[in-house]
Amino acid sequence: MLGRLNHVAIAVPDLEAAARTYREKLGATVSDPLPQPAHGVTVVFVDVDNTRIELINPLGERSPIAAFLEKNPSGGIHHMCFEVDDILVARDQLKSVGLRVLGDGEPKIGAHDKPVLFLHPKDLNGTLVELQQA
Amino acid sequence: MLGRLNHVAIAVPDLEAAARTYREKLGATVSDPLPQPAHGVTVVFVDVDNTRIELINPLGERSPIAAFLEKNPSGGIHHMCFEVDDILVARDQLKSVGLRVLGDGEPKIGAHDKPVLFLHPKDLNGTLVELQQA
Repeated sequence: MLGRLNHVAIAVPDLEAAARTYREKLGATVSDPLPQPAHGVTVVFVDVDNTRIELINPLGERSPIAAFLEKNPSGGIHHMCFEVDDILVARDQLKSVGLRVLGDGEPKIGAHDKPVLFLHPKDLNGTLVELQQA
Repeated sequence: MLGRLNHVAIAVPDLEAAARTYREKLGATVSDPLPQPAHGVTVVFVDVDNTRIELINPLGERSPIAAFLEKNPSGGIHHMCFEVDDILVARDQLKSVGLRVLGDGEPKIGAHDKPVLFLHPKDLNGTLVELQQA
């Protein structure tokens, strides 16, 4: 069911500094910051050969990553995202084997304008996994 | 400088259960457990289309991931590994821009029989990054 790894998301306390590190010190191709008010984050995309790293920073008062950064003030890997062929088929199949979907279970439109869901980290070794329609 | 994302490593408290979850619930292609005494871990490789997830579990008395699992008893994403063309060139370049290399700075032979280094998470937004010779 799991398709390609779409991205690994890293929550960072200082987006400009993090983008500079990846661009100047690690020599990666780094986008401009992209505010995503609907998701409560500003994102910088770091392209590597086979996938993407997303540097994410809280935006607005109720950012979903604010608590993570309070607990991890230096930042850290926040989640990883896999593509699936059909997000509704994937959701129903995962629920049928006991994996919990966060929120109301309905896909939201994600940062790439595609439907996404998040799975409960308690069911996956403490790892927050996002699924995105391919 | 960063080449492809070779793998994302997830420390897990119960390797058999984690492998079963990825195989049976997420429908991934999962290897048998591979003990790596030299690295203090047992690894299960999870293949996805464009990269690998590595489920790692402590092996022996001085496993480098024991402290991580004490702090994160359910498990969690431990590090990510990027390929580089030449590990010594990469090391010297990264050191020259102020990134710290863990240990004595000499590459060790990693889980894939290739030279690897780890960069200090404090220099990279709390993220432990492994570099592996491509």
